Amino acid sequence: MIIVMKPGVPPKEIKEVMDRIKKMKLEPHLLKGTERNVIAVIGDERNLQRQPLEAIPGIESVMAVLKPYKLASRESKRENTVIQSGPMVIGGNKLAIIAGPCTVENQAMILQTGKSVKASGASALRGGAFKPRTSPYAFQGLKGAGLKFLADTRKQTGLPIVTEVLDPRDVEAVAKSADILQIGTRNMQNFELLKMAGKQPKPVLLKRGLAAGVEEWLMSAEYIMAQGNYQVILCERGIRTFNDYARNTLDLTVIPALKERTHLPVIVDPSHGTGKRSYVAPMAKAAIAVGADGLLLEVHPHPDRALIDGQQSLSLEEFAQLMKELAPVAAAVGRTI
Amino acid sequence: MIIVMKPGVPPKEIKEVMDRIKKMKLEPHLLKGTERNVIAVIGDERNLQRQPLEAIPGIESVMAVLKPYKLASRESKRENTVIQSGPMVIGGNKLAIIAGPCTVENQAMILQTGKSVKASGASALRGGAFKPRTSPYAFQGLKGAGLKFLADTRKQTGLPIVTEVLDPRDVEAVAKSADILQIGTRNMQNFELLKMAGKQPKPVLLKRGLAAGVEEWLMSAEYIMAQGNYQVILCERGIRTFNDYARNTLDLTVIPALKERTHLPVIVDPSHGTGKRSYVAPMAKAAIAVGADGLLLEVHPHPDRALIDGQQSLSLEEFAQLMKELAPVAAAVGRTI
Amino acid sequence: MIIVMKPGVPPKEIKEVMDRIKKMKLEPHLLKGTERNVIAVIGDERNLQRQPLEAIPGIESVMAVLKPYKLASRESKRENTVIQSGPMVIGGNKLAIIAGPCTVENQAMILQTGKSVKASGASALRGGAFKPRTSPYAFQGLKGAGLKFLADTRKQTGLPIVTEVLDPRDVEAVAKSADILQIGTRNMQNFELLKMAGKQPKPVLLKRGLAAGVEEWLMSAEYIMAQGNYQVILCERGIRTFNDYARNTLDLTVIPALKERTHLPVIVDPSHGTGKRSYVAPMAKAAIAVGADGLLLEVHPHPDRALIDGQQSLSLEEFAQLMKELAPVAAAVGRTI
Amino acid sequence: MIIVMKPGVPPKEIKEVMDRIKKMKLEPHLLKGTERNVIAVIGDERNLQRQPLEAIPGIESVMAVLKPYKLASRESKRENTVIQSGPMVIGGNKLAIIAGPCTVENQAMILQTGKSVKASGASALRGGAFKPRTSPYAFQGLKGAGLKFLADTRKQTGLPIVTEVLDPRDVEAVAKSADILQIGTRNMQNFELLKMAGKQPKPVLLKRGLAAGVEEWLMSAEYIMAQGNYQVILCERGIRTFNDYARNTLDLTVIPALKERTHLPVIVDPSHGTGKRSYVAPMAKAAIAVGADGLLLEVHPHPDRALIDGQQSLSLEEFAQLMKELAPVAAAVGRTI
Repeated sequence: MIIVMKPGVPPKEIKEVMDRIKKMKLEPHLLKGTERNVIAVIGDERNLQRQPLEAIPGIESVMAVLKPYKLASRESKRENTVIQSGPMVIGGNKLAIIAGPCTVENQAMILQTGKSVKASGASALRGGAFKPRTSPYAFQGLKGAGLKFLADTRKQTGLPIVTEVLDPRDVEAVAKSADILQIGTRNMQNFELLKMAGKQPKPVLLKRGLAAGVEEWLMSAEYIMAQGNYQVILCERGIRTFNDYARNTLDLTVIPALKERTHLPVIVDPSHGTGKRSYVAPMAKAAIAVGADGLLLEVHPHPDRALIDGQQSLSLEEFAQLMKELAPVAAAVGRTI
Repeated sequence: MIIVMKPGVPPKEIKEVMDRIKKMKLEPHLLKGTERNVIAVIGDERNLQRQPLEAIPGIESVMAVLKPYKLASRESKRENTVIQSGPMVIGGNKLAIIAGPCTVENQAMILQTGKSVKASGASALRGGAFKPRTSPYAFQGLKGAGLKFLADTRKQTGLPIVTEVLDPRDVEAVAKSADILQIGTRNMQNFELLKMAGKQPKPVLLKRGLAAGVEEWLMSAEYIMAQGNYQVILCERGIRTFNDYARNTLDLTVIPALKERTHLPVIVDPSHGTGKRSYVAPMAKAAIAVGADGLLLEVHPHPDRALIDGQQSLSLEEFAQLMKELAPVAAAVGRTI
Repeated sequence: MIIVMKPGVPPKEIKEVMDRIKKMKLEPHLLKGTERNVIAVIGDERNLQRQPLEAIPGIESVMAVLKPYKLASRESKRENTVIQSGPMVIGGNKLAIIAGPCTVENQAMILQTGKSVKASGASALRGGAFKPRTSPYAFQGLKGAGLKFLADTRKQTGLPIVTEVLDPRDVEAVAKSADILQIGTRNMQNFELLKMAGKQPKPVLLKRGLAAGVEEWLMSAEYIMAQGNYQVILCERGIRTFNDYARNTLDLTVIPALKERTHLPVIVDPSHGTGKRSYVAPMAKAAIAVGADGLLLEVHPHPDRALIDGQQSLSLEEFAQLMKELAPVAAAVGRTI
Repeated sequence: MIIVMKPGVPPKEIKEVMDRIKKMKLEPHLLKGTERNVIAVIGDERNLQRQPLEAIPGIESVMAVLKPYKLASRESKRENTVIQSGPMVIGGNKLAIIAGPCTVENQAMILQTGKSVKASGASALRGGAFKPRTSPYAFQGLKGAGLKFLADTRKQTGLPIVTEVLDPRDVEAVAKSADILQIGTRNMQNFELLKMAGKQPKPVLLKRGLAAGVEEWLMSAEYIMAQGNYQVILCERGIRTFNDYARNTLDLTVIPALKERTHLPVIVDPSHGTGKRSYVAPMAKAAIAVGADGLLLEVHPHPDRALIDGQQSLSLEEFAQLMKELAPVAAAVGRTI
C-alpha cells in the first residue's frame, strides 16, 4: 500500500501514521519526495485496506497495490476452474450453451423448448421460476410449479437446469430442484443471498451488476467462495451507460480482463446484454471469438407471445440456425461447441 | 401508447397488431404518415406495457405515454406526503436531519453520538447494525446487539432511530426495534426485501440504486406501496459515473425532477454521495437550497478511528458547525431546521 | 412526431399548438386519451424537430418518430457504401486492416513499420503527424515532416495512408498528402472541421466521440456528407463508462446497430478501445466476428520505447501473429482478410 | 511515481527499469514486498508520466503521485485567481451572473434582453453568434452580424459580452468584439482552438466536456495557460450519464473538488446542465450554495419562440424573479449578488 501525504504535513503527524502501520504488524518506509512525502507499506496490506486511513487529515490519498480478493484470484490458483454439472462442463475446451425462456410459462412450453434446444445442441436449459420484475404489477413467475416443470423437462431431456433464486429463504428449495443457481444482476451485491448460495453445494452462476466494476464483481464471487462453495461461474450481461440505441452495453473486453485476474469460468448473456433480437446472434459470435467459456441465451417457442423479454428472445428456429453459425467461430479460436 | 411500424409493413400485419390491441380492450388509431405508419392507442396503456409488442417483427418501436407507477405518482395524489416518526416530521416545512455513524461500534460511542447530534439539532439518529460490505472479510455489523444499543440511545435522547435492513428474514426484528427502516443502494431492486418492507408498519427510507433511473426508483417505491405501506422516503445518495475525483456523483437535479413526479418526500445523503469529508458540508447546503426535505449525514466521534467510512464522516464538532451554517440556507429557501 | 399534452390543458392552448403545426405545412391529429391528450403530426417532421415545442408550457413531452439524419440513413440508400482507396476496399467482403504506429516518430521507424505490416497483410498504414494530446507539454507530432515520411513510405510499400487532421486550417495540406483523413474522438463534434472535411475529396474516417450516442455520431457523418463528400467510414473506439479495469469500454453491439441504421462502412479500433496490449487480439477477433468491415490497429517496432501509446501497441511480430489468427475468424463469418 | 512490478519478474528486468529511471535523472527506490515488488520514484515525475512504462512487460501498473497540471494547480498559486472584465469581477466575493439567449436572433431581441437582464442585476450578457449544432441543417448563428449586435448592446447597457468561438480561424475576430471568449463542451479538447485562445488577451470561459474528468479539464485549462493567457474561467455544465429524466447530469460536487485543486474561478450553467426550465432555478440556488463563483443562464424574451434551447431558457420575468430569490442564498453562504 502506498500512502501519499499532503504537502507540508509536520514530521510528528507522519510519525503517527507510521506508528499506526507498525501496530498492524506491517513495515512502513518513508520516501521523501520533492513535492510529496510517500509512505510505502510492506506486508499483507489487506488488513490495512480496512483501516480508515483516508480519514486522517494529513493523508492525501491511499493507493492499494494488492487486489482485495484472494480465493477468486488467479494468483491463488493458476489453472482454470472447470465446473461439471451433469453432462455439461463449463470452463473446458467445449463451450457451454445454456438456452431457454426468460420464464417458465407452463409445462408444455418449457418441455417443447427443452427438447428443441437439446436437439439443436444446447448444453443446459435455463428458465425462471422466480422472476425479479421492475414493476410490482408484472408477472412474477410460477414459483414452485415452475421448478417442478423444469425438473420434469430435465428428466425427459437430460439437460441440467439453470434457474434464478431471489430470496435467501428460497435457496434451499431451489438448490434441491436446480442444477445451477443463478444470482441475477440486481442481486450481485445482495450479500445475504450470496452467503446462502455459498452454503449449498450446487454451482452458482453470478451475473455482473449493472454498474459493477470488475473488483466488486470478484468480491461478490469471493463472498460465495468464502462460505466454501468454489464453483462460481461469472456471467457478463451488459452494463448501464449513456447509450441511446440499446438498454445495456455488453462489455466484451471484460472477458480477457477477467481471465487475467481470476481462474473462474466466464460466460456471456447477449440476450440481456443487447436487449434486441437482431443483435443477439452477432454478439454471441463475438463473445465466442473473444474467449468466453459459454453463452446464456433466451429462446422461446413464440417470442411475440412471450410473457417476458420477447423482444430479445430467439425463436427455436433462430436458435438452431445460430448454433450452426457458432460452430466455425468456435473452431476458429480453438474451441468446440 | 404510440406504436411505430417499420416502413413497408403490409396492411395485414398492421391489422393484426390493431386486433391485438382491441382484444386488450384498448382503442387503436392508425395514422398514415409520409415515411412511417403509427398506431396510437387510447385507454389505460399499462396493461399493454407488459405485452411483448417489440417482439413483433413489423413493429419498429413502442413509446409509452403514461408512467408505469401509480401509487407513487404525483397525479394520483397532488399534495405532498408528510411522514411523522416520533417527534420528527419528513416532508413538511421543517427539514429532517438524520445523523449518526455508519455503523454502531459499541454502546458508548452510539450514546455519545446520539447525545451530541441531538444537542446540535438533529431530528433522528442513524446507525447500522447490519452492514452490507463489498468484502466478505470486512466488519459486518453488531447485528442484534447493535439494535439494542440503538434502542437504548433512543430512550436516553428521544431521537427516533433509522437503521438498515438487508435480509427479508430480519425485517420483522428490525421493524420492532427501529423507527424507520433503511433499504440501501445495493438492495433498491431486491424485490423480496421491498415486499417485506411493505408489509410492516414503519416508514421506509429507500435509497437510490447506483445505476437507477428515476422511473426504476419510483417503481421500487411502488413495490413497497403496493403492499399497503405508503410511508416511503426517497434518498438520493450518488450515482455511478465516469468521474475521476470521487466514487459517486451526487445528482441534485433529481430533487426537482422527483418533486414533479411524486408526492413522496426526498432527502439527500451527501456523505455517501461524495465519499469525502471536505465535500460534505458544501453539498449539504446545496441539497437544502435545491429543495430536499432533509439530509442523511455520517457523523462519528473519531472519524480517523471509525470502523467504516471514516473518510466521509464528520466529527461531532464539524456536525455542530454545519448545523449552524445550514440554518441561513434553509431560511433563504423558506424552510426551517 | 408525437406531442403529449399535460393533463388539464384547456382546449384553447391545444388549438394554438395545432395551429402552429399547420403553419409548418404539417397535419396535426388530436387523440383524446383517458389520462393525456396527444397530438400526432403527419408529414416530414424534421422541420418541426427544430421548433422549441418543449418550451410551450402545456406540452409535457415531444417524441420524434423519424431519425434526424437523412444522407447517412439506410432508408435513403439500401445498399452498403463501398469505399475504395488505392488498392484497399472498405465495406466489401474483404476486411480492411489499417495498421501502424500512433505517431510517426522518424523516417526509419515508419518505413520499417510500413514494410512489416504490408508483409503481414495490412491493407493500409496509419500514423499520426498531428497529434491531439491531453497535456500541452506532451509530444504533438512531427507535423509536415511526418506527412512527408508517410508519403515516402506509401511510395515504397504501395499502402494507402490514413492520418489525422486536427485543425480546419490543415485540412487542405493533409488531404494532399494522405489517402484517408482521420477525424479523432475529441473532434467528432468539431463541426468546423467536419465541414472542411466534407469539402475535400478524400474519404474520411470518423471516430466515435467518447460520450456520443449513435444518433449524434450519424449526425456528424451527415455534416460531412451534407458538404458533398459521401465517403465516410465510421470507427468505434470505445466509450467512457464507470469501468475500473480499462480506460474505455469498446462497444461492439454498436456494429449491428449501425448496420441497421446506415449504409456506411464501420471499422473498430481495439487499441484505443481497450487501452491494453493483452486485450487487443481477443477484441480484434470479436470485432471481426460481430461484422465489422475492418480494424484500425496500433503497431510499433518497439512498443516499450514508443513516444505515445506503447501500452496498447502490438509489436511487429504480434501483429503478424494476429493476422494469422484473424483469418479463420473472418472465414467463419464469410469474410476474407 | 509508484511502479508495481508483476510477481516473479527476474532481478535483471527490475534493474533495467531502475536504470531507465536513473537516465531520466530521477531516483528509484526498490521496495521488496511479500507479494509484489514496487519501485518508488523520487523527483519530478512529470517527465516520467510521458514514458511508455506500462508497455514494459514486467510492469503491472504505474500510479502517479503528482497531478499532471502545473499552472492551473492550487499548489503553484495558493490564492484565488480573480478575473476582471469591464465592471464584472469573477472569483471575488460578488457573484458573476452571465445571462442571455442561447443565440443572437436579431438586433432587437438581443438589445431587449440586454436591457432587461441588466435591470434585473446581471453582470454580463451571453449570446451566441457562432453556434455548434448537432444537425448540419439547424440554424448555425448570425456570425459577424451577431457579433455586431452584441457590441451594440454592450454600448447601450455597459454589460460585458460573453460569446462562443468554434474555429481557430475566428478567434482573432471574436476576441476583437467580445469581452470573454467561450469554449464550448464539444471543443474542450479541441487543442488547436485552446492554443489560439491562449494567444489572445481576453479571458476564456472553458466549459467542461460531456465526458471529461477533472484532470482532463484542468489539462485543457493548462493548454490555454501554457500560451500565456492565465485568465481562465471554468464552467460546469453537466456530464453525460445513464440518467433517464434529463439530457445531462449537473455535477455540483465538482465545485469543491476544483476549489481544492485549482486557483481558477468556477461558474455553473444550470440551463444546459439540466436541459429543462423548471429545474433551472432550484439548481441555480444549489450552485450558489455549494460555492460557485457565478452562473451562466439562458434567458430569452419568448422562450417558446426561441430558435434554440427554448425548453431550458428562462423568460425575462422568470430571470428577474430568480435574481431576487438568489440574493438570500448568496447571503447565507457569505456572498453578494
